[in-house]
Amino acid sequence: MSNQSLVLPTVPHRIAQMREVMQRAGVDALLIPSADPHLSEYLPEHWQGRRWLSGFQGSVGTLVITARFAGLWADSRYWEQATVELDGSGVALIKFEPGQLSPAQWLVEQVPAGGVVSVDGNVMALASGRDLRANLEARGVVLRTHADLLNDVWTDRPALPRFPVYEHEFPYATVSRSSKLAALRETMLHKGVQAHVIAALDDIAWLFNLRGSDVAYNPLFLAYALVEPQRALLFIDKSKVDEPLRRSLEGDGIELRDYRDIDRVLQTLCPGTRLLLDPARVTLGLVANLQPDIELIEAINPIQLNKSQKADGDMVHVRHAMEQDGAALCEFFAWLESSLGLREVTELTIDEQLTAARSRRKDFVSPSFATIAAFNANGAMPHYRATAQSHARIEGNGLLLIDSGGQYLGGTTDITRMVPVGEPSAEQRHDCTRVLKGVIALSRARFPEGIPSPMLDAIARAPIWAEQVDYGHGTGHGVGYFLNVHEGPQVIAFRSTASEHTAMRARMITSIEPGTYRPGRWGVRIENLVVTRDVGCSEFGRFLDFETLTLCPIDTRCLLIDMLDASERGWLNAYHDQVFHRLAPLLERDALIWLEKRTQSI
Amino acid sequence: MSNQSLVLPTVPHRIAQMREVMQRAGVDALLIPSADPHLSEYLPEHWQGRRWLSGFQGSVGTLVITARFAGLWADSRYWEQATVELDGSGVALIKFEPGQLSPAQWLVEQVPAGGVVSVDGNVMALASGRDLRANLEARGVVLRTHADLLNDVWTDRPALPRFPVYEHEFPYATVSRSSKLAALRETMLHKGVQAHVIAALDDIAWLFNLRGSDVAYNPLFLAYALVEPQRALLFIDKSKVDEPLRRSLEGDGIELRDYRDIDRVLQTLCPGTRLLLDPARVTLGLVANLQPDIELIEAINPIQLNKSQKADGDMVHVRHAMEQDGAALCEFFAWLESSLGLREVTELTIDEQLTAARSRRKDFVSPSFATIAAFNANGAMPHYRATAQSHARIEGNGLLLIDSGGQYLGGTTDITRMVPVGEPSAEQRHDCTRVLKGVIALSRARFPEGIPSPMLDAIARAPIWAEQVDYGHGTGHGVGYFLNVHEGPQVIAFRSTASEHTAMRARMITSIEPGTYRPGRWGVRIENLVVTRDVGCSEFGRFLDFETLTLCPIDTRCLLIDMLDASERGWLNAYHDQVFHRLAPLLERDALIWLEKRTQSI
Repeated sequence: MSNQSLVLPTVPHRIAQMREVMQRAGVDALLIPSADPHLSEYLPEHWQGRRWLSGFQGSVGTLVITARFAGLWADSRYWEQATVELDGSGVALIKFEPGQLSPAQWLVEQVPAGGVVSVDGNVMALASGRDLRANLEARGVVLRTHADLLNDVWTDRPALPRFPVYEHEFPYATVSRSSKLAALRETMLHKGVQAHVIAALDDIAWLFNLRGSDVAYNPLFLAYALVEPQRALLFIDKSKVDEPLRRSLEGDGIELRDYRDIDRVLQTLCPGTRLLLDPARVTLGLVANLQPDIELIEAINPIQLNKSQKADGDMVHVRHAMEQDGAALCEFFAWLESSLGLREVTELTIDEQLTAARSRRKDFVSPSFATIAAFNANGAMPHYRATAQSHARIEGNGLLLIDSGGQYLGGTTDITRMVPVGEPSAEQRHDCTRVLKGVIALSRARFPEGIPSPMLDAIARAPIWAEQVDYGHGTGHGVGYFLNVHEGPQVIAFRSTASEHTAMRARMITSIEPGTYRPGRWGVRIENLVVTRDVGCSEFGRFLDFETLTLCPIDTRCLLIDMLDASERGWLNAYHDQVFHRLAPLLERDALIWLEKRTQSI
Repeated sequence: MSNQSLVLPTVPHRIAQMREVMQRAGVDALLIPSADPHLSEYLPEHWQGRRWLSGFQGSVGTLVITARFAGLWADSRYWEQATVELDGSGVALIKFEPGQLSPAQWLVEQVPAGGVVSVDGNVMALASGRDLRANLEARGVVLRTHADLLNDVWTDRPALPRFPVYEHEFPYATVSRSSKLAALRETMLHKGVQAHVIAALDDIAWLFNLRGSDVAYNPLFLAYALVEPQRALLFIDKSKVDEPLRRSLEGDGIELRDYRDIDRVLQTLCPGTRLLLDPARVTLGLVANLQPDIELIEAINPIQLNKSQKADGDMVHVRHAMEQDGAALCEFFAWLESSLGLREVTELTIDEQLTAARSRRKDFVSPSFATIAAFNANGAMPHYRATAQSHARIEGNGLLLIDSGGQYLGGTTDITRMVPVGEPSAEQRHDCTRVLKGVIALSRARFPEGIPSPMLDAIARAPIWAEQVDYGHGTGHGVGYFLNVHEGPQVIAFRSTASEHTAMRARMITSIEPGTYRPGRWGVRIENLVVTRDVGCSEFGRFLDFETLTLCPIDTRCLLIDMLDASERGWLNAYHDQVFHRLAPLLERDALIWLEKRTQSI
């Protein structure tokens, strides 16, 4: 180790080392996305190379390094954070917006013909990797994907997580893995494929009724699966599976293989096999193992579609989980209301108290994402997270936005509520009421079965647009069943691509969460989870509506009641009536009193 | 001529002759779309080959002929008509629905490797032709596009139309062609192209402020245009252009060339020219003239975007045209109401009387499409047209749907109204009211500038979906300025692809026309034209709303007033108030009395 490394700050030193490695390898540009071999939302430390190398701690961002340039592409959510964290690092922040050059486009424009771009093919989706390769090759540039150059610099790289895997048991798992496997094989038969490889961790967890703890918030474990008509292989660190579970899996015809054996097994597939895979959910690296005589059948993972339509039995547990979650929230809100003005409450205290209230509830496993407790101006950042270094005290007047959720054995929750602190201003209450009008408009909509979900967005936005207000995020995302809080394929967001895969079907759980963000001042968001219900066939076809699942008062002190019309007031009163009747049996003392007060008719 | 031809029915004989031609040419399958070299909506007789060869008279349909098969693909609008017209012809009706094989897909599946498919490249869009060629070649099938085999069979093929071309004059043309050319050249400069070829007839008519009569309803003339920085060529049958007009065009730097010279001029473009063209609006045949060293820059015709955003000056004339059109409708409706029960009125009489009323109005040129007057069950067919052979008498009880429009020197109109006949039933009035709620919901919406127009569809449908009703067509189409009644690029239809080109911008004229169709019973549609208005910037960006342009009472006798809430009644009363005040000065006697009666507040 040279003397210089002792004085150089960490990030510039690491990047200098990386440039030496690149030079030795004959690489002109290195691309490091925020991704793992499963293309997950939350990455194990082992695949946090972009964070390690750039110093930028945000969860989404792409790093590009050349001999003379280092740049981190981040979207507007992260600009404030990235500006601070990249300061003095020598890494430029590239503010990525629609219409701007993406990192891939930048590489195509900047790397001269004859150059070499390197990316670890194991962390790049097949679909986007192919596009990048085609675009680079058209300019005479080579894309190398076989090496993870980080390994040569990141000497203390963390190992893979080794948390135990456990069964998602009856009664919570209402469909057996044998049934799920049988249904998947039926689909494979219909598509005429002899094998299906799966890398998406939530698809694997769902298929086998297994859960794990390898990453925060999502109850997942690192694995691959290969399903064939006669066998199903689960590739996993075997030390994670205890003996009874192994026997149970084997009893269902599932063979365990080592996590890293996936490459070898793919290399030795029978010649001529028609292999089903989802080019958005497997990596370039995985496919690189295939012999040329394997025929790829590319389509969305059938599990994506099956998983999104919850079983009727699942929904019974989800409704129970919503009651437990609502009861926890009532206890927390009763505590909060009694504490404000009496003792110091900060955004961090809120997270602690809320998580503690949930932890006391039946079947609670963990938060489903990092709690957002954001007071006034902090609420204007949709992805704000309070830290020990930087957080607000809840005092004075204004609005407190709390977005949180829990993983329960019987479901996943995600809820946002606005809390009045002191006296919210009329403008703040106006914002809350307008957002609530959007929630109500979509919550009570009916629509044809099969409509592309992005097309529903305008129904929630219309009452908000009416006053020339809008928000930059989607209105709704799919939610798993004791699985990821963000789950596809449906998405209520007008900027998303409407396709047959985004069609609305019965028994899909989706969030409805319009908002209003006034930078530097405050932010408003109100969020419920809903599930699509089949309301039957008319002569015009089959129609769906939404059942609101989330059970928690919407604080009317944040509202301007006169802005609501009679039918909107009717919706709110009916909602509060239901919240009261379903939560009251689970509460006592202060929390019950609080619930009664906050569910009064208006 | 063989003896046989005298006894064989027309269509089978023509197809037999075509098969002989195909055999001699070594063609296994012939594709005949409903299209012309300009990819127009209305085709001159010369390009009605599909109609001539198959006997099917509908405006949209695709014919495929092989040695053993002849099939006509038609969508559901035409099934009834096609079943009758193809009966005994030997041509099978292929009922084309979403998810079914298109003619192109059928060819890919059916023609064996080594086979030859022929289509006249002059009537096939570049974009779809390329797809077809790629898909056929992947199966080892050749696509030939250089020949129009119809010529060898269709001996009495009609000549091209030769109606005179005329100037769209000041004050109606509010932007000079020099300004439009200058703006187009600015865009070309920005895109770095040296030439732009235009085949779309409405784009050409708009650019040069010229109009013609080569097809029904659309005031267009056959032409091509080639615009370069220093010259603009208009390819047209020169006999259509009189001497003063020719001088006027030359004065603006526009050179006339013969219509058929386009091929030669494209063949002799300077080597290396970057040529802008729209692959959806030029044909394979046109591009076949280009030397390989011409670089194609493919994008939507810039004129499409410019044309859709009307000039402020245009809008002054459009509002006047709407007043004239509304006045004509009042005179017609007053006549209709006084005639029903006294003399025989049929769907045909309605067309005559309505067109006559419009013809008496200032600046009227022609209908903008074939009037749809459809009583009760006929109204359930969205594209119904009464004929001398088949039409209904207006008598008894029910609903009469009238969808009509006019071309005026100062604008194009398109309006649908429902007329009560005798006593419409409560169910019929319920349908009308629900549809009106959809019209109102979208008419008063605000939305961000730039939103993809398909995303707005749900706002009109939400109140209709609420009662599990839906309709199979889009909610709105763009409308030209004394040009095509169907004009892009915006389209309010959730099945359309949302893209940057379908973005809503200020000063676009669009229809709002939800409906309800009960096959065999009745149909309801209410249609107004609206124009997008800039309502200014808020801190969330620029917003638009709609100004309703169409001025004509919505007959409240077709409504169940109790179904409308206070704000909807307010919208209707304000609309009728405006209709009264703007039309009354143009009316007298019976029509004025009728207007006053039909615009009473509810």
